[in-house]
Amino acid sequence: MDRDAPPIETVTETAIYATDLDAAEAFYADVLGLPLLGRDAARHVFFRVGAASVLLVFNPTTTRTGGALPPHGTTGPGHFALGIRADALEAWRAHLVARGVAVEQEVAWPRGGRSLYFRDPAGNAVELATPGVWGTPAGW
Amino acid sequence: MDRDAPPIETVTETAIYATDLDAAEAFYADVLGLPLLGRDAARHVFFRVGAASVLLVFNPTTTRTGGALPPHGTTGPGHFALGIRADALEAWRAHLVARGVAVEQEVAWPRGGRSLYFRDPAGNAVELATPGVWGTPAGW
Repeated sequence: MDRDAPPIETVTETAIYATDLDAAEAFYADVLGLPLLGRDAARHVFFRVGAASVLLVFNPTTTRTGGALPPHGTTGPGHFALGIRADALEAWRAHLVARGVAVEQEVAWPRGGRSLYFRDPAGNAVELATPGVWGTPAGW
Repeated sequence: MDRDAPPIETVTETAIYATDLDAAEAFYADVLGLPLLGRDAARHVFFRVGAASVLLVFNPTTTRTGGALPPHGTTGPGHFALGIRADALEAWRAHLVARGVAVEQEVAWPRGGRSLYFRDPAGNAVELATPGVWGTPAGW
């Protein structure tokens, strides 16, 4: 750790990739309930998550070519985790089942906290995690 | 947006991929100054970011095979952004230059806020963003 580095406050953007952005929007807005922040049919669909972060879903076919911003874009299943309250875990499990989303795995972590894993339509490994998994100052 | 979905509080884990984890650790710990949370030489190196989040750098060669957790792993350059204070931007620009990290692009956003883009050793597009880019409640 470089103690000369200026401070970093938070993660503000988490990106995943999906070639079918309509399917991604249906999943993240309609199943996970994330508020839509913006969309460009050929390039991206963006969502707000909590107070400080956004989830960016990019079509890598478009973002790999760059354009006005630095190019990026991956293939294969990515991964990220969303924090939920411990008392929301049961409701989330029931909600996913009701929406036809298969829970791939559930984990009780050694330090505390539980995670539910499932797939988005593009195959990305999505995790919902309750506080305790990492022991962050905010709880997660 | 599904108003029946239980609440989501924050993004807790952002994942990127790198086959050279030593180079990733040198970059994220020694250049960006992120506190190391854990490492497994064949699989991952993890960092804490701010109060609620962690940055996970995985070797996709290992995580694609699964093991105890759902498999994931991408190829190609991913992307994510870290929030910094507006008054830290000049210091960050100077710090990156001093560490030999080329700033690929700097953007002044229409809504306010500025971003610096550069590459990690694996080619991922890393962004440092000041408040105003997204208009989140927390500022970013």
